Amino acid sequence: MSDSAHREMWEKLDMDLEAHDALLAVLGTFYGDIYLSQENRLKGAEYLDFVLSEVHGLRIKELEQAKAEGRKVIGSFCVFVPEEIALAADAVHVGLCAGAEAGTELAEQLVPRNTCALIKSFIGFKMAKICPFTESSDMIVGETTCDGKKKAYEAFNEIAPTYVMEVPQTKTAAAKALWKTEVLRYLAEVEQLTGVTITPERLKRGIQVANDKRRALQRLTALRAANPAPISGRDALLVNQISFYDEPIRFTTKINELCDELESRIQAKEGVTPGTTPRLLLSGCPMAVPNWKLPYIVEGSGAVIVGEESCIGTRNSRDLVDESGDTLDAMIDALVDRYMKIDCACFTPNTERLDNVTSLAKELNADGVIHYSLLFCQPYAHETLKVDKALQSEGIPMLSIETDYSMEDVEQLKTRVEAFVETLA
Amino acid sequence: MSDSAHREMWEKLDMDLEAHDALLAVLGTFYGDIYLSQENRLKGAEYLDFVLSEVHGLRIKELEQAKAEGRKVIGSFCVFVPEEIALAADAVHVGLCAGAEAGTELAEQLVPRNTCALIKSFIGFKMAKICPFTESSDMIVGETTCDGKKKAYEAFNEIAPTYVMEVPQTKTAAAKALWKTEVLRYLAEVEQLTGVTITPERLKRGIQVANDKRRALQRLTALRAANPAPISGRDALLVNQISFYDEPIRFTTKINELCDELESRIQAKEGVTPGTTPRLLLSGCPMAVPNWKLPYIVEGSGAVIVGEESCIGTRNSRDLVDESGDTLDAMIDALVDRYMKIDCACFTPNTERLDNVTSLAKELNADGVIHYSLLFCQPYAHETLKVDKALQSEGIPMLSIETDYSMEDVEQLKTRVEAFVETLA
Repeated sequence: MSDSAHREMWEKLDMDLEAHDALLAVLGTFYGDIYLSQENRLKGAEYLDFVLSEVHGLRIKELEQAKAEGRKVIGSFCVFVPEEIALAADAVHVGLCAGAEAGTELAEQLVPRNTCALIKSFIGFKMAKICPFTESSDMIVGETTCDGKKKAYEAFNEIAPTYVMEVPQTKTAAAKALWKTEVLRYLAEVEQLTGVTITPERLKRGIQVANDKRRALQRLTALRAANPAPISGRDALLVNQISFYDEPIRFTTKINELCDELESRIQAKEGVTPGTTPRLLLSGCPMAVPNWKLPYIVEGSGAVIVGEESCIGTRNSRDLVDESGDTLDAMIDALVDRYMKIDCACFTPNTERLDNVTSLAKELNADGVIHYSLLFCQPYAHETLKVDKALQSEGIPMLSIETDYSMEDVEQLKTRVEAFVETLA
Repeated sequence: MSDSAHREMWEKLDMDLEAHDALLAVLGTFYGDIYLSQENRLKGAEYLDFVLSEVHGLRIKELEQAKAEGRKVIGSFCVFVPEEIALAADAVHVGLCAGAEAGTELAEQLVPRNTCALIKSFIGFKMAKICPFTESSDMIVGETTCDGKKKAYEAFNEIAPTYVMEVPQTKTAAAKALWKTEVLRYLAEVEQLTGVTITPERLKRGIQVANDKRRALQRLTALRAANPAPISGRDALLVNQISFYDEPIRFTTKINELCDELESRIQAKEGVTPGTTPRLLLSGCPMAVPNWKLPYIVEGSGAVIVGEESCIGTRNSRDLVDESGDTLDAMIDALVDRYMKIDCACFTPNTERLDNVTSLAKELNADGVIHYSLLFCQPYAHETLKVDKALQSEGIPMLSIETDYSMEDVEQLKTRVEAFVETLA
């Protein structure tokens, strides 16, 4: 696809071409520095490079083609929005732009300054007209996972109509019942949007496709337990990031191929860094494309990242939907159960997460954990203290990082991360 | 009751006497400056002065007496915890300390620094052992109204066992069903705590007592529409603050007496300030005792406060529970309906609040509104922008203040408030 065809498409989507060009230019340089500069990269990383380079190009073209065929595009910002339902209705389920400092000043007209970078970013991307996913979406789905997003969707709704799902705050039977009602309400909404009646067969297929994707990601996670680390944390994060944008069946095939390559590497005891490299687990807030700041700093400090305990990581792939049900009701119950297993900090209590972080750190043979909170993200800031305590009791050291998307604190973070890595060597 | 008897009681409650003495000394000076210095005060204010001076003394003695009689004390931090149920079980329902900068450094061991002052305060009061209400409580009830409190209760629970009610985030039928389940779960918990079976007669009485208190507060609100203002905003805020601590039947009688006095004043066209004084409505976050900082600044700037649109204000008194039901189920439904009318910023959407703020400003003949957000309170910070827009469309000017409990910004706030008041004169 030629550059001019891309531009024509973006123009049709009513994007701001000049601002978007500037974004792509920065992104390109950034990607070159952080990704293409890596040594001992996997052959399978070529696919990642290609997908990322065409994430605003060919992938959007695919969405346009899907729409031309009468299919619908559903965009969301959170792992609580059930992809299975979109897939069952033959819709395309995509993540929306939220990982770069873009349009921040515009966003601050709609939300308070003390709002986390991710929220400001998704509002900024929309206001600056530089997210082709948002512009391509026939439906945008929000949720009530934190005060910041919950209230921001009210403002966002004025510029981009947003359907909001209520995620409960506990995991009691009554809370689960509320979530089931919300899943059913969403299913009806998707049926209305797409004109597709979601039959048991369709939902079964949707569950299978989403589960297959999760199984591929689980395979990748498990392989990273090997020493030396067969893949960089940056590349593994990219896989998780791309999982929100790419066509799911193709993605699953490609990630399984990448895992085949990892297995050969592991057998040959090859790695991206020597076996003596300190191994770190990242834990906390999601890192949306192109938020590679901390992984770049960490892997530039003589450590290697072996896992991401976050929504753009194991939190989204750990739990499968039970596939044994054959009726719509059984499958909906299976969906509800699966989503209520998510150990998001939005729940109270959320002790599962403490168990999950410590067991993941052990499974992946991590020497330490870096807990990552976005500034002003209250749920994860609160859990930082608890995760630290849980890890301490298992003798696993932790460093807490609170930051945003700006580059102002890079030197300071480097110093702190390097000092932490030194203690692990 | 002698001072030494008080001290003995506090010691029995395992309070830190030295730290508590220091708190009372500061509070006393503060109260003298802010309250006792007022001119044209009501005769009924003597009761307020007395209650406040004995809030940690005689009132705690009353709680101890109630406990000696086998009654239970239930403490809470939020207007969503149904007082009617405690009253029905012959328990004492009280608010807990949360309005002063106390034990902040201790609190920051349990919650992030970027936590609002109210939350840090309730944790600090407990850790510093200076809140006799917390120490007297047989049960502490939290709720999920914001991320900050929701997650803070997890930490608080480790030092003071806390029962948490899930308040939903929308007002859909499913959300209401969740809330009904939570009300019933709480009722069962209170029955177990108290050993009292809550009969329809008991609940009816509880509803009546709570409604009578609200009716007295509604009467006070309505009388403040008069010009000149018959009561200072500080004294009216104190009435609302005391409503969380005082014995409800006595309080209702006293507030109705105070309203009688106000009516005489209004008839005589007497006021606390001249009829030309700019009239302001405060709107936003609750001001817990002894958080009088902003009212003092406002009324020291040549304005008078004529209403408090907050949880310690009209948000807690505006809606009554329907009293027509006779069965337990009908009364529970009435309770659920009443509590789901609360226009807390925790709900999405929460457009009722915009209507309520503008209509209240008009009813009270306010010349302007000061929107008050506690720093790091995300729900109210988000709504600040919306309230401003709603008021603007009605031609009502608004000033937005974001602050905490420290005195560092007093001069800066004074300058801003004075400038705002000048534009209204």
